[in-house]
Amino acid sequence: MNWNQDTKIVIVGLGLIGGSYARALKKKGHHVCAIDKDQASLDYALNAGIIDAGSVDTSLLPEADVIILALYPTLVVDWVRAHRGEFRKGVIITDVTGIKSAIVDQVQSLLPDDAEFIAAHPMAGREVSGVQNSDDRVFINANYIVVPTEKNSAEAIAWCRELGRELGFARISELSPKEHDRMIAYVSQLTHCIAVALMTCEDNENVRDYTGDSFRDLTRIANINEDMWTELFFMNREALLERLDGFIEEIQTIREMIRTEDAEGLKEKMRLSTKRRAMFDRD
Amino acid sequence: MNWNQDTKIVIVGLGLIGGSYARALKKKGHHVCAIDKDQASLDYALNAGIIDAGSVDTSLLPEADVIILALYPTLVVDWVRAHRGEFRKGVIITDVTGIKSAIVDQVQSLLPDDAEFIAAHPMAGREVSGVQNSDDRVFINANYIVVPTEKNSAEAIAWCRELGRELGFARISELSPKEHDRMIAYVSQLTHCIAVALMTCEDNENVRDYTGDSFRDLTRIANINEDMWTELFFMNREALLERLDGFIEEIQTIREMIRTEDAEGLKEKMRLSTKRRAMFDRD
Repeated sequence: MNWNQDTKIVIVGLGLIGGSYARALKKKGHHVCAIDKDQASLDYALNAGIIDAGSVDTSLLPEADVIILALYPTLVVDWVRAHRGEFRKGVIITDVTGIKSAIVDQVQSLLPDDAEFIAAHPMAGREVSGVQNSDDRVFINANYIVVPTEKNSAEAIAWCRELGRELGFARISELSPKEHDRMIAYVSQLTHCIAVALMTCEDNENVRDYTGDSFRDLTRIANINEDMWTELFFMNREALLERLDGFIEEIQTIREMIRTEDAEGLKEKMRLSTKRRAMFDRD
Repeated sequence: MNWNQDTKIVIVGLGLIGGSYARALKKKGHHVCAIDKDQASLDYALNAGIIDAGSVDTSLLPEADVIILALYPTLVVDWVRAHRGEFRKGVIITDVTGIKSAIVDQVQSLLPDDAEFIAAHPMAGREVSGVQNSDDRVFINANYIVVPTEKNSAEAIAWCRELGRELGFARISELSPKEHDRMIAYVSQLTHCIAVALMTCEDNENVRDYTGDSFRDLTRIANINEDMWTELFFMNREALLERLDGFIEEIQTIREMIRTEDAEGLKEKMRLSTKRRAMFDRD
């Protein structure tokens, strides 16, 4: 695998995450180019010194040793299908998509034998969008998940882990696409559903002056990119529905404990949640 | 109303909030005493210079110009019933309890005519307990709600607002006990139910390495004092059940939108939640 200062990296989609990748990789001395449909985003990145070159077409593609797909989830497969003939021999491709089962197998089966796709999920979203808001500091203390399949080489998996380290992630781990999607349905998609429901279940303009930290913490992610998250939810529908049902059943159990004043049952739930939460703070 | 450096303030219950009140009021030069059943808490506070005097019995009570009840919610009414004969004439009493309807009327009806109870709710809890963890900095940027009834004098209400300012709260407002409890069921009690359910609905030890900020934000308050919160939930049962039902109905609606892939319905919910959340960040 080529991975030195001469390696040509092309980021496809220069938004919040693509821009943050570009910043981090440029700081490490890499050669970074970008493809985006929006010339203004490219101009911004060129002026800010985040990229070495940019193009609204795919003319940069044949030079790429590394391609990083930072596109909207539903666009990934179609983009690969449309441009796979333009890839350089031996190219390594990765992505930043928040769901995996719905895209990894498809992308891998579309590629020629001399190209390899190794999926990854940088868990570092923010409630803003666009390259103008990109910031590579979001990777510090964040988790990076490499999502290999049987088709991936040990070399590509090792390279992808190294990419996570180059970007500055604190913890790098590996999950299969199915494990990843089941886990992400719980820790990310369910939490976003809850935050939205908490914000929309009440006309809450009048409570603004009375909220404590807890309400603000639980609704921070209620500020949400509706196009991207609707795509992510639908592309991981079965896993998310299963997690939603588990959560709804649990909160209904707690509701019944409150209705029947089952103090011991409720305290047992609270002790369990306290114990589990303490474990999350250990690192 | 006496409210000067000679005013004798007695805090009943020297835990996290009682201790934080003591710290804030001592810094402002007030004379602060405490009653607590735990001698070790009093010793700690005396050594730390947080209080001027402390006692495990109620011998300090007859001297008090101001009594601040920082007791567990279920203890407040019984404590007032037991000790109302020991109050000084003209005493003003306030509290820190997180629910109001279940205690304010009872406490006011128990008091002699020459004593006044004006309820207040400092919205500044933390996931720790005890005077050793007390910290008056938690009041900065926090909300303080004065909860008067028809029985309260304008003078007592004004005094209670001044107490909130002395403590260092950023925003001071007024609600009736019923308004307060309905509001708190939503912004505080419902959020704690959600955090507990999110933590207990799954055996989640294995997802610890994959969580992003959102899961951590939503479960911070899953670390919960089970005795106090069970009391608070039961004492505000009807209002909390109503809010739980509203939330459960809403998240079931969102679940159905995901199941049927109703993209426009889901995006509309997300746009509403984004708009409302932005309003919360305005101040």
